[in-house]
Amino acid sequence: MWGIELLRQREVSLKRQIYQTLRDQIINGRIEAGEVLPSTRELAKQLAVSRNTVCEAYEMLLAEGFILCRQGSPTRVAEGLYIDRSPGAEAYEEPSRHAQPILADFRTGQPDLRHFPRFQWYQILRKAYEEMPLSQLGYTGPEGLLHLREEIAAWLFRNKGLVINSQNIFVTAGSTHGLHLISDLLCRDGKGILMEDPCHMGMLQVFRSKGYPVYPIPVDAQGLQVEYLEEKSACAVYVTPSHQFPLGGILPANRRAALIRFAKEKGIYIVEDDYDSEFRYCGEPVAPLYSMDPQRVIYVGTFSKVLFPALRIGYVVLPRQLHARWRYLRTHTDVQNPPFEQAALAEYLRSRKLDRYIQKMRRLYGERRQVLLQSLEEKFGKEWHSWGDAAGLHIALEFPGMCFDKQFVNSSKRSGIRITPVEYHSICKGKHQDKLLLGYGHLEPEEILKGVSLMYEFIKDYFDIFHTQIK
Amino acid sequence: MWGIELLRQREVSLKRQIYQTLRDQIINGRIEAGEVLPSTRELAKQLAVSRNTVCEAYEMLLAEGFILCRQGSPTRVAEGLYIDRSPGAEAYEEPSRHAQPILADFRTGQPDLRHFPRFQWYQILRKAYEEMPLSQLGYTGPEGLLHLREEIAAWLFRNKGLVINSQNIFVTAGSTHGLHLISDLLCRDGKGILMEDPCHMGMLQVFRSKGYPVYPIPVDAQGLQVEYLEEKSACAVYVTPSHQFPLGGILPANRRAALIRFAKEKGIYIVEDDYDSEFRYCGEPVAPLYSMDPQRVIYVGTFSKVLFPALRIGYVVLPRQLHARWRYLRTHTDVQNPPFEQAALAEYLRSRKLDRYIQKMRRLYGERRQVLLQSLEEKFGKEWHSWGDAAGLHIALEFPGMCFDKQFVNSSKRSGIRITPVEYHSICKGKHQDKLLLGYGHLEPEEILKGVSLMYEFIKDYFDIFHTQIK
Repeated sequence: MWGIELLRQREVSLKRQIYQTLRDQIINGRIEAGEVLPSTRELAKQLAVSRNTVCEAYEMLLAEGFILCRQGSPTRVAEGLYIDRSPGAEAYEEPSRHAQPILADFRTGQPDLRHFPRFQWYQILRKAYEEMPLSQLGYTGPEGLLHLREEIAAWLFRNKGLVINSQNIFVTAGSTHGLHLISDLLCRDGKGILMEDPCHMGMLQVFRSKGYPVYPIPVDAQGLQVEYLEEKSACAVYVTPSHQFPLGGILPANRRAALIRFAKEKGIYIVEDDYDSEFRYCGEPVAPLYSMDPQRVIYVGTFSKVLFPALRIGYVVLPRQLHARWRYLRTHTDVQNPPFEQAALAEYLRSRKLDRYIQKMRRLYGERRQVLLQSLEEKFGKEWHSWGDAAGLHIALEFPGMCFDKQFVNSSKRSGIRITPVEYHSICKGKHQDKLLLGYGHLEPEEILKGVSLMYEFIKDYFDIFHTQIK
Repeated sequence: MWGIELLRQREVSLKRQIYQTLRDQIINGRIEAGEVLPSTRELAKQLAVSRNTVCEAYEMLLAEGFILCRQGSPTRVAEGLYIDRSPGAEAYEEPSRHAQPILADFRTGQPDLRHFPRFQWYQILRKAYEEMPLSQLGYTGPEGLLHLREEIAAWLFRNKGLVINSQNIFVTAGSTHGLHLISDLLCRDGKGILMEDPCHMGMLQVFRSKGYPVYPIPVDAQGLQVEYLEEKSACAVYVTPSHQFPLGGILPANRRAALIRFAKEKGIYIVEDDYDSEFRYCGEPVAPLYSMDPQRVIYVGTFSKVLFPALRIGYVVLPRQLHARWRYLRTHTDVQNPPFEQAALAEYLRSRKLDRYIQKMRRLYGERRQVLLQSLEEKFGKEWHSWGDAAGLHIALEFPGMCFDKQFVNSSKRSGIRITPVEYHSICKGKHQDKLLLGYGHLEPEEILKGVSLMYEFIKDYFDIFHTQIK
């Protein structure tokens, strides 16, 4: 009857099944405009359902204008409802994920989650949840929870010596999110951004994905080469002065001063991404560039690396003149962060648990770094040297004379080795083909040893070298 | 000595205090380039600290390039470090928030949080947390948790009869976030968007904040007036067909069909924002436009209204051809949602708790709506009529002959009444000056009665009317 087949076991009610079938038939044109539908009594009888069920289905069709009912007239299908649907995309399969198993995983930016004190975090989250005022389930504003902003200010003071008013701190959903908003905040009238080259490909894509122009400034072992700074119609310079990504340099004081003088002269901002300087293995964390000129430097920080990536909490420190527009943009981008993790993080900071956790992980990562360097030396002898400062969760290696291109990456992937050449993160290609990045933070010492060993075998075969030295 | 004043009670270590003071003096130019610093032994003695402390401070300065040490030579300040800092912004005070107390709060889009089963949600969150695999603390992809996407698909089928492959569902951080990404996804080459007028001011600002052109299409009591649709170099039409915001119409089937034919002819998308159709007080939820052409309609949903705003979880349903670019944009916008709320929501859906909660709230909101309508009738007699369908958390009222302008709003605010004229949400001003929006979802019946009473007194005085009728 009218193509209606009722399935009584389904969770969808019978009236909805009737409604849907009739509706679909009308849209498809199988029931035509003006056609008379059976009376509710008649249809109920034919489908063996109560008349009420059919009445309700007809009411739904009527409310949405699919049918017309007039006192004393039969129910008819309304006009102008037929649609020739757009052709559907081909049925498709999810991209296959049964790739080669990963035997050596040197990806960068992976903190070790296995050592994260989940139970402790969970207890804090619970407490935060229990104590949360009801109002925080509603909208709490684009700045982030005040309590968290105050704790971040105190933490930045304890750990990096920054004196920051919590009013200048805005909570974000991580560095990428912060940079996304900064790009919309600053890049106007076709202006672009000056970026370190090489730099983190993900951060570069934040700007590129919106079509904002990017102007590369080369980087050496000490970081940004300030002598190459040129105006280029830019609104800001993006830098990682505490630990250049990917090459690892700490920007020296004279370059910092030159950078700030340049920005000041051109009237542009400096975006300082301090993504992992908490993990520095000799000496204290480096003082942020921010402290040298808080009116010109936008400081971007994150808790993804020190806690866990899925937390999705970071922050930016903004000069006063950008506050209003930040609030406006955040409100119309994604409104705000959820409050639970914010409250938990505030407590994690207040109770100094984060300080202790970072200390513990710094020791652990430092040991892993040693294991990595030592095993590289054992395997590769003097054929390499490392770049940059003893910090972060990855290391950049130079193998003079070798060339790590796409073919190398694909081939290594087929051998189960996940490794990134510096070239991947380069804007102007061709300058860093002899360098590899090894992320080690997430690897246990035995995983590092095994990984280096596999990598050594692979590189030896791939380049057909070391034979002479070894034999 | 060198301006160093050590505070031994501070949480900042002595070495850091020494380092910071010297660094600041160098940047300020109070210690000049080339100047010789005291030996570590000497400075330690003068400051009464251990020599180690001073050594460590000097090492930090050395690492960052503030000073130069050469074997056999005294330690000197490096060149080129002096910066004339940018002038600081004036010290400022937070905008004062001790405004008039709110006596009648008719803001729109506020669900009632007091009835939210916090304890139940908390138990589910706890379970989700305990059962969460460690890998979900890392990056889990821009699509959202698979389990949640499957549960959303099942829920959309149960509640709105939509048959959607979970692969087409992408989790967002709420509707605003969804729309923000959609605008970047679709608005290219200067193309804009056709929008209902009036429409939600917040949603309009999502497009405006990025400079994308917006073309208004007028709305009547039934929703979008499809006869005014014009191409206008747009990439999409934004509509709220299940419950037009703010006027409340349900788009009738013939207009739906015309809208889809228009979009098809012009080769553009339809963005369907289904922000609150779960709360419909007569009959079932309206079937989304999506079901009429899944290849052309992008369906935007949210859990902010049905659960609580701070949850920050929504979703979009995208046709296959937009998946890859969505993934790319999400990855470079804010990466992903946090996993905890996602897992909890999946369980809340799976166990049908959301279905029951919506049912309960629908009854409650429906009762409040009745109370509101009744008390409006008691107070205002026949001087008004309501617009739109019996749905959602607000109602649009027309008071023929009255004019609710900015002055009215400011004046009502001073009297402690929070109320929004439809005009606030209008793109082309001047067409809806006789209409007010009353949000009632978050108000208990006695709050509604008191609010209407206050509003009546206020309007009576403000327009100096009703006197004749009353006396």
